[in-house]
Amino acid sequence: MAREGTTQVRVRYSEVDRMGVAHHRSHFVWFEMGRTELLRGGGLPYAEVEARGIFLPVIEARCIYRAPARYDDLLIVRTTLAEMGAVRAHFSYRIERESDGRLLATGSTTHAAVGAGGRPQRMPEALRRLFD
Amino acid sequence: MAREGTTQVRVRYSEVDRMGVAHHRSHFVWFEMGRTELLRGGGLPYAEVEARGIFLPVIEARCIYRAPARYDDLLIVRTTLAEMGAVRAHFSYRIERESDGRLLATGSTTHAAVGAGGRPQRMPEALRRLFD
Amino acid sequence: MAREGTTQVRVRYSEVDRMGVAHHRSHFVWFEMGRTELLRGGGLPYAEVEARGIFLPVIEARCIYRAPARYDDLLIVRTTLAEMGAVRAHFSYRIERESDGRLLATGSTTHAAVGAGGRPQRMPEALRRLFD
Amino acid sequence: MAREGTTQVRVRYSEVDRMGVAHHRSHFVWFEMGRTELLRGGGLPYAEVEARGIFLPVIEARCIYRAPARYDDLLIVRTTLAEMGAVRAHFSYRIERESDGRLLATGSTTHAAVGAGGRPQRMPEALRRLFD
Repeated sequence: MAREGTTQVRVRYSEVDRMGVAHHRSHFVWFEMGRTELLRGGGLPYAEVEARGIFLPVIEARCIYRAPARYDDLLIVRTTLAEMGAVRAHFSYRIERESDGRLLATGSTTHAAVGAGGRPQRMPEALRRLFD
Repeated sequence: MAREGTTQVRVRYSEVDRMGVAHHRSHFVWFEMGRTELLRGGGLPYAEVEARGIFLPVIEARCIYRAPARYDDLLIVRTTLAEMGAVRAHFSYRIERESDGRLLATGSTTHAAVGAGGRPQRMPEALRRLFD
Repeated sequence: MAREGTTQVRVRYSEVDRMGVAHHRSHFVWFEMGRTELLRGGGLPYAEVEARGIFLPVIEARCIYRAPARYDDLLIVRTTLAEMGAVRAHFSYRIERESDGRLLATGSTTHAAVGAGGRPQRMPEALRRLFD
Repeated sequence: MAREGTTQVRVRYSEVDRMGVAHHRSHFVWFEMGRTELLRGGGLPYAEVEARGIFLPVIEARCIYRAPARYDDLLIVRTTLAEMGAVRAHFSYRIERESDGRLLATGSTTHAAVGAGGRPQRMPEALRRLFD
């Protein structure tokens, strides 16, 4: 499976702060949408992963903001699975503005695998095979 | 138990939109904080209600916005349990600015009681007795 | 111009609460997306309205929740301009699940027109003509 | 002025996701509340900084999640001004649970100073002196 996915998102009015730009928490939500679409593209929707009792909480997140996103901007979120290990997964992201291709933000998230009770687990094989 | 509760909330930067005022979805979050504190004041924190397997989803919500709330405003949320019936609970709210007492918004929410699977239930007796 | 618009939205992980369903504040954000697309469809994007110094704050909002929206559900937001008066606009909404057409929520918002400083204004003619 | 500040925040129902833990975007909002209170404690509320036409957008943000925060947990946000330079400010954060002192998250943000139009500026002297 491709380790990269692309999705589009339009900046919502509710995501923009009084500086007139998307509030910095929004990018982490967009990263999450990127992961959702990357897994769907691989044939294993994240909702199915959770239905099997496996959760992938974020244990580290980072974003570098290069240029502001504004209300109604159409954005492209490029998500890359950088590493799928035995107990950790690592994704990286690029957010571009669709109209002019300008890079607005880059970032990364690291995830653990846990069971329903929050106990650490190994990454599910189905997920690891997906990205071989 | 008193059917009224009061809590304070300071408007967060992330709650303010590019008009410079609190986005209208924020008031529903503040209403929810008001309910949380009303139940805590009654000796039955909502977290305990859910720990018993009872959930109180919102089935109707309404807000009338009378004046804008701004970043860093300190607000007073006044919550009243208007009715606790066999299958419905109804709360009403007033949001005032602490500095000058100005009324910023009024609203109401109606709640059903459901079990963990979403099936309708009767309001738990513990909750009904609380407000007798 | 048609007084109705339709847009799609996929429920985000960040919009779902610990009951496993979309938090009730989310619907007001989706309504707002519906308004954005209705105006765009009419040839007057809301960003342009604000660029002219006119803002349309929500002065009343209401939602009736009929069935839960869940993570990754694809939703259809149907927005209707119910009334565009001299000083008020009124929109109504229906949110359906795309997969089975089930009606999940209905609602409405009422808007005033204000200038940059928050002073009441008449609805801009460009907007009123749009919906004649 | 002390370069450290402490504020409390109670985890809202709307901040918790279907894993039953605070969604990872929430921590960045709590960091922002920590900055707000640190500046207020220093006698220069951030609202006043912006009233002077200076904005401090986040240009980099990072969080390490060590243990989950849950609905209704009372949290302590410890904010430290790590560096206030000519053109950059750098804050670090620790979030602890009040009941048992457990460290839930650590993080950092870096800020630029810009004018109302988004043009880079030097950090205002009032702000720099505050932390000398």
